[in-house]
Amino acid sequence: MKRKRGKIFVISSPSGGGKTSVCTRLKKTRFDIKYSVSATTRTPRKGEVNGRDYHFFLKARFKRLIKSGKFLEWADNFGDLYGTPKNFVLNNIKRSKDVILAIDVKGAMQVKKMYKKAVLTFLMPPSMDVLKKRLKKRKTEKGRGLARRLKVAKKELAYLKRYDYVVVNDSLVRAVETFKAIITAERNKVEK
Amino acid sequence: MKRKRGKIFVISSPSGGGKTSVCTRLKKTRFDIKYSVSATTRTPRKGEVNGRDYHFFLKARFKRLIKSGKFLEWADNFGDLYGTPKNFVLNNIKRSKDVILAIDVKGAMQVKKMYKKAVLTFLMPPSMDVLKKRLKKRKTEKGRGLARRLKVAKKELAYLKRYDYVVVNDSLVRAVETFKAIITAERNKVEK
Repeated sequence: MKRKRGKIFVISSPSGGGKTSVCTRLKKTRFDIKYSVSATTRTPRKGEVNGRDYHFFLKARFKRLIKSGKFLEWADNFGDLYGTPKNFVLNNIKRSKDVILAIDVKGAMQVKKMYKKAVLTFLMPPSMDVLKKRLKKRKTEKGRGLARRLKVAKKELAYLKRYDYVVVNDSLVRAVETFKAIITAERNKVEK
Repeated sequence: MKRKRGKIFVISSPSGGGKTSVCTRLKKTRFDIKYSVSATTRTPRKGEVNGRDYHFFLKARFKRLIKSGKFLEWADNFGDLYGTPKNFVLNNIKRSKDVILAIDVKGAMQVKKMYKKAVLTFLMPPSMDVLKKRLKKRKTEKGRGLARRLKVAKKELAYLKRYDYVVVNDSLVRAVETFKAIITAERNKVEK
C-alpha cells in the first residue's frame, strides 16, 4: 500500500468544555499521535509551561507571525490571540503522522476550509449548567467574563452541524475512549 | 435529542476471510448490538446450530421467501443460496438498535443500494496465502472448490473502493477492536 499522509484531527469545545483535558489524557498513552501546541498572547495560568501547554508570545511578535503566514489558523478570543503554528502540522502530516489540534470553533472552521480532509470533533458539555460550573472552578472567569463566555458557548453550539463527530463530555474517561475510537475508525476509512 | 434510527453495519470478507469469527467474538461482550442470522440452503457444517449460526432452509422454501420479498438481500454463492431476513433488520433499526450483517460482497452491494446510510466494512485477509490456509483448515473446500473460492476472493477485492472502512484481519483480537471503534465512531457522527 502507498504511504498515506497523516490526518489532521481537530477537537474543539466551548471554553471550559474539556478539549485540553481530553488531550492531556491522550498524550499519556498515545505516542503515535502528534499534538499541536497553540500559540497565544494571553497570560500563562498557574502551572502552565511555555512550549508544553502553549507557546506564550507577546502581541507584537504574534502579529508579525500572522503577517508572515506562520499560522494555520488564528483567532481573537476575548482580546487574546490564539493560533496554530503551521510548520509543525504540515511537516507531521507529510511524514504520515496524525496531528491533533485542540482549538476553538473559529479556528476549526478555518482549518476545515483549507483542509477538507481534516476530521472535526466537537466536544459537547453535557449541559450549560455543567459548563458554568467548570468555568467557575477554573477561577479565571468571574462576573462579566463568565457571562460572556457562556454567551459565546451558546453561539458555538450552532456550528455543531459543520463537525464530523460529536462527543458528549459527561465523563472524561469515556470522552477520551470515544475520541480514540474516532481516530481508529478514520485511519481505517477507505480513501475515495 | 430526537430518538435516532439504528444503523446497519455490514461486515464482509471473501469466503474464509473471518467475518463470522469477528461476529462470534463480538457477540460475547456486545449485547447492545443485534446480529442478523442469515438464511441459507447449504448443508450445515459440523457444530452449526439452526437459528443461531444460520436459518437452514430447503431450496423450495428459500425461493418462496425470495418471491414474497422477505429478504433484504440474497445471493447465489457457488450454487447455495444465502439471504438476510428483512424483518429482523428493519424492526431493530426502527427500535434504534444497531444491526450487524456478516454477508458477502454481493449482498453488501445490494444493501448499500437500498440503504445509503448502511456502514460497510471490508475485512481484508492479510494475504492470499493466509486466505488459502484458512480455507484449507476449514476442510470443507478442496481442489476445484478451493481454487474457485480463491478466484472469487480476488474479484471481490475490486469492490473494496465501494466500502466505507477496511480492516486488515491479521489478528482476530485487533480486528474486533477496530470494528468496535468503527461502530463507536459511527454512533458519534453528526447527522448531515
